[in-house]
Amino acid sequence: MSHALLKASHTHADDPLQVAAELAQRLAATANARDQAGGHAAQEREWIRESGLLTLSIPTAYGGQGADWPTVYQVIRILARADSALAHVFGFHHLQLAGIQLYGSAQQQRRFLTQTVEQNLFWGNALNPLDKRTVATDADYGFQLDGIKSFSSGSVGSDWLTISAWHEASQSALIGVVPSRQHGVAVQADWDAFGQKQTDSGNVHFNQVSLPSTQVLQAPGVKATAQATLRSQVAQLIMANLYLGIGEGAFQAAREYIAKEARPWFASGVDKAGADPLIQHRFGQLWLKLRPASVLADHAAQELDRLFRLGAAVTAQQRGELAVSVAEAKVLAHQAGVDVSNDIFELTGARSTSAKFGYDRFWRNVRVHTLHDPVDYKIRDLGRYALDGTLPEPTAYS
Amino acid sequence: MSHALLKASHTHADDPLQVAAELAQRLAATANARDQAGGHAAQEREWIRESGLLTLSIPTAYGGQGADWPTVYQVIRILARADSALAHVFGFHHLQLAGIQLYGSAQQQRRFLTQTVEQNLFWGNALNPLDKRTVATDADYGFQLDGIKSFSSGSVGSDWLTISAWHEASQSALIGVVPSRQHGVAVQADWDAFGQKQTDSGNVHFNQVSLPSTQVLQAPGVKATAQATLRSQVAQLIMANLYLGIGEGAFQAAREYIAKEARPWFASGVDKAGADPLIQHRFGQLWLKLRPASVLADHAAQELDRLFRLGAAVTAQQRGELAVSVAEAKVLAHQAGVDVSNDIFELTGARSTSAKFGYDRFWRNVRVHTLHDPVDYKIRDLGRYALDGTLPEPTAYS
Amino acid sequence: MSHALLKASHTHADDPLQVAAELAQRLAATANARDQAGGHAAQEREWIRESGLLTLSIPTAYGGQGADWPTVYQVIRILARADSALAHVFGFHHLQLAGIQLYGSAQQQRRFLTQTVEQNLFWGNALNPLDKRTVATDADYGFQLDGIKSFSSGSVGSDWLTISAWHEASQSALIGVVPSRQHGVAVQADWDAFGQKQTDSGNVHFNQVSLPSTQVLQAPGVKATAQATLRSQVAQLIMANLYLGIGEGAFQAAREYIAKEARPWFASGVDKAGADPLIQHRFGQLWLKLRPASVLADHAAQELDRLFRLGAAVTAQQRGELAVSVAEAKVLAHQAGVDVSNDIFELTGARSTSAKFGYDRFWRNVRVHTLHDPVDYKIRDLGRYALDGTLPEPTAYS
Amino acid sequence: MSHALLKASHTHADDPLQVAAELAQRLAATANARDQAGGHAAQEREWIRESGLLTLSIPTAYGGQGADWPTVYQVIRILARADSALAHVFGFHHLQLAGIQLYGSAQQQRRFLTQTVEQNLFWGNALNPLDKRTVATDADYGFQLDGIKSFSSGSVGSDWLTISAWHEASQSALIGVVPSRQHGVAVQADWDAFGQKQTDSGNVHFNQVSLPSTQVLQAPGVKATAQATLRSQVAQLIMANLYLGIGEGAFQAAREYIAKEARPWFASGVDKAGADPLIQHRFGQLWLKLRPASVLADHAAQELDRLFRLGAAVTAQQRGELAVSVAEAKVLAHQAGVDVSNDIFELTGARSTSAKFGYDRFWRNVRVHTLHDPVDYKIRDLGRYALDGTLPEPTAYS
Repeated sequence: MSHALLKASHTHADDPLQVAAELAQRLAATANARDQAGGHAAQEREWIRESGLLTLSIPTAYGGQGADWPTVYQVIRILARADSALAHVFGFHHLQLAGIQLYGSAQQQRRFLTQTVEQNLFWGNALNPLDKRTVATDADYGFQLDGIKSFSSGSVGSDWLTISAWHEASQSALIGVVPSRQHGVAVQADWDAFGQKQTDSGNVHFNQVSLPSTQVLQAPGVKATAQATLRSQVAQLIMANLYLGIGEGAFQAAREYIAKEARPWFASGVDKAGADPLIQHRFGQLWLKLRPASVLADHAAQELDRLFRLGAAVTAQQRGELAVSVAEAKVLAHQAGVDVSNDIFELTGARSTSAKFGYDRFWRNVRVHTLHDPVDYKIRDLGRYALDGTLPEPTAYS
Repeated sequence: MSHALLKASHTHADDPLQVAAELAQRLAATANARDQAGGHAAQEREWIRESGLLTLSIPTAYGGQGADWPTVYQVIRILARADSALAHVFGFHHLQLAGIQLYGSAQQQRRFLTQTVEQNLFWGNALNPLDKRTVATDADYGFQLDGIKSFSSGSVGSDWLTISAWHEASQSALIGVVPSRQHGVAVQADWDAFGQKQTDSGNVHFNQVSLPSTQVLQAPGVKATAQATLRSQVAQLIMANLYLGIGEGAFQAAREYIAKEARPWFASGVDKAGADPLIQHRFGQLWLKLRPASVLADHAAQELDRLFRLGAAVTAQQRGELAVSVAEAKVLAHQAGVDVSNDIFELTGARSTSAKFGYDRFWRNVRVHTLHDPVDYKIRDLGRYALDGTLPEPTAYS
Repeated sequence: MSHALLKASHTHADDPLQVAAELAQRLAATANARDQAGGHAAQEREWIRESGLLTLSIPTAYGGQGADWPTVYQVIRILARADSALAHVFGFHHLQLAGIQLYGSAQQQRRFLTQTVEQNLFWGNALNPLDKRTVATDADYGFQLDGIKSFSSGSVGSDWLTISAWHEASQSALIGVVPSRQHGVAVQADWDAFGQKQTDSGNVHFNQVSLPSTQVLQAPGVKATAQATLRSQVAQLIMANLYLGIGEGAFQAAREYIAKEARPWFASGVDKAGADPLIQHRFGQLWLKLRPASVLADHAAQELDRLFRLGAAVTAQQRGELAVSVAEAKVLAHQAGVDVSNDIFELTGARSTSAKFGYDRFWRNVRVHTLHDPVDYKIRDLGRYALDGTLPEPTAYS
Repeated sequence: MSHALLKASHTHADDPLQVAAELAQRLAATANARDQAGGHAAQEREWIRESGLLTLSIPTAYGGQGADWPTVYQVIRILARADSALAHVFGFHHLQLAGIQLYGSAQQQRRFLTQTVEQNLFWGNALNPLDKRTVATDADYGFQLDGIKSFSSGSVGSDWLTISAWHEASQSALIGVVPSRQHGVAVQADWDAFGQKQTDSGNVHFNQVSLPSTQVLQAPGVKATAQATLRSQVAQLIMANLYLGIGEGAFQAAREYIAKEARPWFASGVDKAGADPLIQHRFGQLWLKLRPASVLADHAAQELDRLFRLGAAVTAQQRGELAVSVAEAKVLAHQAGVDVSNDIFELTGARSTSAKFGYDRFWRNVRVHTLHDPVDYKIRDLGRYALDGTLPEPTAYS
């Protein structure tokens, strides 16, 4: 959260941040109702598509907007303040595009990124390496995919999916891309978590799905390069910015409620809630959760952008130091998001729990989302680094 | 939470704790579904009635079971582990009975308590002193009541209500009892908070409702005795035990999930989640939240019971020291309930957020309920006491 | 800390708590000066001896006062509020006496306890099982001891020592008692920690020291009984009460400083520091650290006393559950002691750091003492127990 | 703390950071011994003088090095890691020079800054606005000063002092400069706090001291400009960097101790302390205290530098937003410094408390220094700002 969060924005109409702010405003109007209903937000995903923001991270060489990562993350944060489920779908769309740039050949990049711009495609994720139930078997055209993949965010309503599959012969995973509506691909709208309800994060079933070699981004048995392992850092920083956006949304909700709705406690001796020193003090503590997380997320985004642009030249050491910066931001954003969305109620009080406000959605959303990977292992990684400089091992989560 | 929470219970069939345990088990089976549906739990309130526990706190002289307060609070806690909404309705029933004993004349006690036993009546609350919208005007038979009262827990489906009403002439409130189905009383099922959904805590409307003098427990203009002000301590300790029950319920849910469902994190190097030192350590921290809260709540219950039995002989000093003990227990239970219901997810992980488990209800329930009155003012009261021995001022909340 | 901490005491002249209170008052007068000087407190140890409290825990059958453990721990806490170094020396004296009762034969108990009463002996500790540098070799009269033992609390100025020594042949430790001034025993006044300076906790050197069989409390190769393993629980609870006493001492110092010395902050708008809501709130939080720790320490003391009196009949299960209770109290006391002694300065401000007050000694003392064994392993033990009922493994620390 | 803290430095010989690093190394060799002895560090202050760093913040126009504020603060932090008392004296020297630039006329700036460069002068502080015991009375040459000023950091051994004095006639304070050895000025070496012992922060007595008009930086009755009120922000950020330097020093000490001295706990199952997951996790938490504080302090330093260079053009709004940034950094640095210097012992254990390491000095130093002004009012200021954009009121502390 920059200090600017508290002031009017100074962006311009063609500025992606301004586009995002307007989209966020539209999403906000129904965010509470849609959170309670759950399900697929077909209409709202169309709004995202229409906003033009799906091409935000695509290099101008392929017809995209060529925005840097700090801008992409700002957009995610702006959307997440209003609707963190759709912000997640949006962020993961760009994660898939990042994956194509990090893993894909020059030809693949040209093909898929250009196509994404031309057809305004929406990408979903079916790349969950801890779930090895989807297997790839060798075929003359490439591979055949069979099995299930869980936690497939943004899969419902997507045009293309990035997938991972376990390749028994090489005891390793491949990564590829498939059209979401290809024969044999069955995207399930079966996500039923208590938060982030409209992230379309259910199961995808693969039944004799053909994956031609041209759609394999990373072949089985190939050791990931330092560049390729940047993908998990892109993903982790999407998480961090989602948590921050949720925390900031909760913070703003509390701020407005205190100004407009809250009554001073009868024993406080003040004439409005916002003048209560105990409320001011606690609110200051929440600010001190969000603010550092925001600053460190911005730092990490700049560092990521720099390494992303280095391409194949990025070294394992650079990648490892980035992973430390991203881990710092992610842990702080995790704690800020959870703490702020939980603590605001101490300030807003009993009447703020009415369903008409829907303020519990901030907590439910951030609580569900922060479980992507265990925060204690992130903290342990930072401790190891601080103890003797050990860099986090590159995995899908670090 | 006693150590016994972790072991088989040693109670007997005629033991109220055993009756409560069986009732809790019945409630637990549908608690998640009913939490999601909300609304009035007519069937389940009948189960409570049938259990015989509505007479638990009524002295044997009036035909009740004459249980001491520690037992009543244990029952509340046992029920709250399974279903904190119905536990609240149950607890507040006994709060009304306590009020009759603390405020009422000998005749009133005999009449209302005997009648409660004979007809197995269920009492609800419409005594919210911060809401002065219900007014009492003098009438030859006593008073006429008009207006609205919010946060009327257990009002829907109740037989009798305790009410407070503002008496303009004396610039003070009266307290009385009225049948819930009396002409002019309209109990609204309009409670819409995001937690404690089935507490029937909506608005009650009074339209030219007659309150005969015989049903006035505390007349307007009468300064409350130290004995009378014990009522808020009975209420505060009900809160504390509800928070504890919710926290214990969340803790047990996490315990079972870790044992049966959770998978070890791939980087942990252990073969089951429960063997992970970081999980063990965090679980130990949660235990250290619940355990002291539980012990201090038990202490406060014993102290309350002692003073309750002193009747009119209780002094302001004794009452004040009790209020300190109750405040200690309530703050610790508040923090334990909120922290445990929030933190368990760090241990149980992403798959535990499925709606089929409904584990978010612990947080939603405790979060809504802990806003009854601001915890920061409770902590301030304790600080004042610790600084110079100032006792909490007797109010409806302290 | 009971509520009574804030009030005048109601003890009598022959009450050990009264004797302790008077002794504490004497020690308090020079505690700050002696803390700064460090070294051996010969004079003050004589005062302890003269107080008669050295026989406090000795059964009346041997001429002692036969106090229960809750009383012994209260005395430790009272002394620790004033002078935690001498309170430690006092507590460890009684730990040695407990060891004789838990390990020793009937004859040994009679001999050493009676002698302690008759000669008003002071016992010190040289039983540090993690330090295996002192070895016992078989001799016809028993064993010969050679080597060094560190962290030997209360050794300087003691009459007798309990010692442990590594017995190579059996790959186990023996436990025995030796006179501190026996030939070959060299007690070093070389303790140089930054806190608990006057605990005489330096090294003891053994050079061809004879340990006759009659002074062996536990022979090598003998598996400790459940009863014998109570010793570490006696020790752990001494720690907990020392931490509590230090925390309470710091709390009282802050309380008095705020009342008598502190000035309100110019921006507070109040006319005395104690009326500042932010000070009241923070003080309330400190109270909520000390109070639960105190209550749980009292509980554990009662439980320990009960098992201690069971003698050889105590079971491993009972001992394990006691260890859980003691661990709970110890962790809470650790955290309360460290947090309170650290945080009081936020309340008392810059001028309270003058050496004339010496308020830093509370932190230095508790900081040094709380490192006896790692708190994180205690918390992990509690987590294990809470997860699946695993009892702490009996060791010298759990 | 930048990630670079963990690596070799890449500075050059003429780089002030390199000069500081070498000076810090010299100071470190005796820091523990001097901390224990206390008193005036005459020799070490000469080393500072000889290092040339006294002219660091002086504009090149006056012959100084013209370093920006971020560099000055880095130097303070580097020195504070080794010796926070001398780092404070050094920082407050530059605070006085800042004051001359912010309050003084062009002539005064030229005179005093040039003279400081030419004579390599050391400045001390006697400007404590809460202490109104020093009064200024009108005289034909300017004012006469009489009275006492407490908390006069760096006064002993200084060449010049900045002073404030209460002017009764105008009910306001003036600010001026006087030579420390002027007739009537008596600098007392009577600072006796338990930390920051060698800061020479005792009392200064003024007895008929002449203050000519040419040495008055701010006349009585003159309302401070926004520019002038930057002085308290320069001071607050010195504090923040001192706290950070202390925290980083403690962190590095723990890091080295764990690598070289610490033994794994017997129950950990690992072969070196640094491999213990509970130690790694806790160390990661400490890192997450220091790192955000460091990043926010760097941000605030850049913002301060920008406003400092605006000179008289700086607005109250800009100044207020800077005060928010500085407050954020200061609170985080306060908490990081106190928490890290307190918590490292949980990681390093009992043997690390030996006086030969002197690791308690980190806590004692930061504990004393963080009481300059109450952190709770800083947090309240941030809460006010976050609630409704209220900027901190310009005072000597905000």
